[in-house]
Amino acid sequence: MKKILIIGAGRSSSALIRYLEENARKFGWEITAGDRDLTLVQEKVAPSTCAIALDIFNEQQLNDEIQNTDIVVSMVPARFHPVIALPCLKYARSMLTASYESQEMSEMAHKAKSQGILFLNELGVDPGIDHMSAMRVINRIREEGNALLCFETFTGGLIAPESDNNPWHYKITWNPRNVVLAGQGGPARFIQEGTYKYIPYHRLFRRTEVIEIEGFGKFEGYANRDSLKYIEKYGLQDVPTVYRGTLRRPGFCRAWDVFVQLGATDDSFTLNNTEDMTYKEFINSFLYYSHEDPVKTKLYQYMHIDQDSDVREKLEWLGIFDNTKIGLKDATPAQILEHLLCKKWALEPGDKDMLVMWHKFIYKQKGQEKPTLLTSSLVVTGDDPVNTAMAKTVGLPLGIAAKMILTGQIRLEGVYIPTIKEIYEPILQELESYGIGFIEKNMEWNGE
Amino acid sequence: MKKILIIGAGRSSSALIRYLEENARKFGWEITAGDRDLTLVQEKVAPSTCAIALDIFNEQQLNDEIQNTDIVVSMVPARFHPVIALPCLKYARSMLTASYESQEMSEMAHKAKSQGILFLNELGVDPGIDHMSAMRVINRIREEGNALLCFETFTGGLIAPESDNNPWHYKITWNPRNVVLAGQGGPARFIQEGTYKYIPYHRLFRRTEVIEIEGFGKFEGYANRDSLKYIEKYGLQDVPTVYRGTLRRPGFCRAWDVFVQLGATDDSFTLNNTEDMTYKEFINSFLYYSHEDPVKTKLYQYMHIDQDSDVREKLEWLGIFDNTKIGLKDATPAQILEHLLCKKWALEPGDKDMLVMWHKFIYKQKGQEKPTLLTSSLVVTGDDPVNTAMAKTVGLPLGIAAKMILTGQIRLEGVYIPTIKEIYEPILQELESYGIGFIEKNMEWNGE
Repeated sequence: MKKILIIGAGRSSSALIRYLEENARKFGWEITAGDRDLTLVQEKVAPSTCAIALDIFNEQQLNDEIQNTDIVVSMVPARFHPVIALPCLKYARSMLTASYESQEMSEMAHKAKSQGILFLNELGVDPGIDHMSAMRVINRIREEGNALLCFETFTGGLIAPESDNNPWHYKITWNPRNVVLAGQGGPARFIQEGTYKYIPYHRLFRRTEVIEIEGFGKFEGYANRDSLKYIEKYGLQDVPTVYRGTLRRPGFCRAWDVFVQLGATDDSFTLNNTEDMTYKEFINSFLYYSHEDPVKTKLYQYMHIDQDSDVREKLEWLGIFDNTKIGLKDATPAQILEHLLCKKWALEPGDKDMLVMWHKFIYKQKGQEKPTLLTSSLVVTGDDPVNTAMAKTVGLPLGIAAKMILTGQIRLEGVYIPTIKEIYEPILQELESYGIGFIEKNMEWNGE
Repeated sequence: MKKILIIGAGRSSSALIRYLEENARKFGWEITAGDRDLTLVQEKVAPSTCAIALDIFNEQQLNDEIQNTDIVVSMVPARFHPVIALPCLKYARSMLTASYESQEMSEMAHKAKSQGILFLNELGVDPGIDHMSAMRVINRIREEGNALLCFETFTGGLIAPESDNNPWHYKITWNPRNVVLAGQGGPARFIQEGTYKYIPYHRLFRRTEVIEIEGFGKFEGYANRDSLKYIEKYGLQDVPTVYRGTLRRPGFCRAWDVFVQLGATDDSFTLNNTEDMTYKEFINSFLYYSHEDPVKTKLYQYMHIDQDSDVREKLEWLGIFDNTKIGLKDATPAQILEHLLCKKWALEPGDKDMLVMWHKFIYKQKGQEKPTLLTSSLVVTGDDPVNTAMAKTVGLPLGIAAKMILTGQIRLEGVYIPTIKEIYEPILQELESYGIGFIEKNMEWNGE
């Protein structure tokens, strides 16, 4: 009887747990799900699953649990994966994550290989399904003998139109800390028409482009981290444009940029006296001093926000000019903003989220004069605030990959991301049976 | 016979060396000056001084030299002081620096005390003379029974009017790396009318204020690092406004902000292909792609720089739109910018620099209704590109402090900055004999 250990029962784990529980019945697996917070796990698992309180910093317990399983799915925040990877290497257990492959994880490739195990990262939605679905198209274009000229890909975790009732057209469907810190940690990098481009964080949310998906309306995209590192991973060394982006509804980025400009997304220092601070005082601490102008007036003047700008409605709706006490001690600006947004952008009962992915490929067919534009889009809607589109698109590929390893369909050893056909093809096929499928459109490219 | 060891013979060491050599003749001291670059030391010392090649990472050599001296003056970059401090602790030798007291240095206080030695930091101009001259006035105001309401202080290392022949009104008179990185490393922090204020780096150069010094014209000041940490050091816990700033000539900051906005001052990552890159391509790597607009047009549009803006003249004068090859391998944006500025903003033969310091105090006298505004200003002009105002104002206080320790005038033990009367009073008095004296002006404060 094969055993699976799931570590972390946060926001995105519900679909993963359900998928593995369904398959456990079929294949006779035994599932253990652990989290620091036992109640959180208990709420999410079926009676057949063993729910445990698991502290990954309890070395003895972590070692025991990993030794006692066949495969590990780590759903903890990305920076903690190496803590779990060490005993996985020790006891030769494969591990799956939905997080970006860190330098630390990459460096374990040799050890993983020599232990005959697989560390498979970036197996969620972004990163994850984006890699798989893009590589499927890229490989097909090339197998047909065409030359790829441009690859752009955008993903957004958004709110479904029927649940969209705030002026930001956004609610929190994943780790709220990452929502606030999005775009930090080095400039966004990509290559466009053969020229390397770099956008610093404080300019990122003003360098957007508009994307329209038939039936779902318009979105705006901003550059997502370092696209350059995927050039090698995807084998795109000869492609002049490679760009990864993040989607929001139009108008979001310009308003969010106000917080970036203020310094209100900074997580590197704690503010003085946050315990007694109101949200209005929080905003005021980033503004010039005046003994006349109210905080709101100062902000609008400082940021050049006109009276008819929709940015005003967004900011005022958040309550940032209220005299409400924040109530956090020794908090960073980012922590205060997260605290506010978790309340304002919370999913309400009945709310459905929406995961949107959009790829753009431009390629030249042999003998044809004009290049072809191919777009490929995916829209997944959640069931409710727990079974979200985000949880499905993160959890299902992880679950399918776990199944494929346990059943011997994947036999790789080392550290990988799912850009390899033998990984992405069966996962994409099974995802389609869950309604997660891409719609492709082909047209002649007009050069714009 | 007492011995002095000077480590580091860079830009600001000339006046220090000369001062100590003069006093060595009088007091019979023996001076050793060491630098990685022996030629650099040899150029700067008199025949009576022993010039040596000294690598601070050669532990044996560093230990030997420190054991063989009575006092150490460290002129190396701030991050290397702890390397020198360790053997100083071991052999119980006092050490002086002109750098900000780092966390690492502060934590040596207990050990220094138990060894009976003194580590005296922030003993140059800014930090240094600013502390000394401000504390002298603050203590006098308080000794007279007055209440201090506001303390602001500004310093700038600039170019003298007679040598000012470029549109930036700026040349490099200190560490060029620090010129490019100025303002980075956490938000600027200060307190204004009782409210804590924080300015992120990407807003710093647009939050300037204008200062006029009689006979020297107008300057603009931007907030300098963390002013809050001096509240305790200066004993200003009851003062509602405490602000430290840096001075430039008007217009500098707005133009410099273009580089900040682009991301061209970033030192955290290396650009691709810098070896073959031109300055125009460097600028273009931060701009949007266009197959029509020239780089210059794109920059002006992106940064909203009007046709009649003096920012254009400043940028074009630097040659950032030229097709000149940069010629640096694997360089960060900051390194490329430094490389360019070192050429364009170099002191020419005959050039004189100018060090400007300006303090503002507002205080209330007992029984008086209206507060008093007291300003205190210092302007020092250099002799030539080697004996700069910067070198004098950094080197002389260091030299005087070294003399005071060797002659037993200072008998402190531990880690200090010169905010203590027994340190600053004799130093300020001797500085006056070198023409480094403050001019005070008193007037009724009109509340603006």
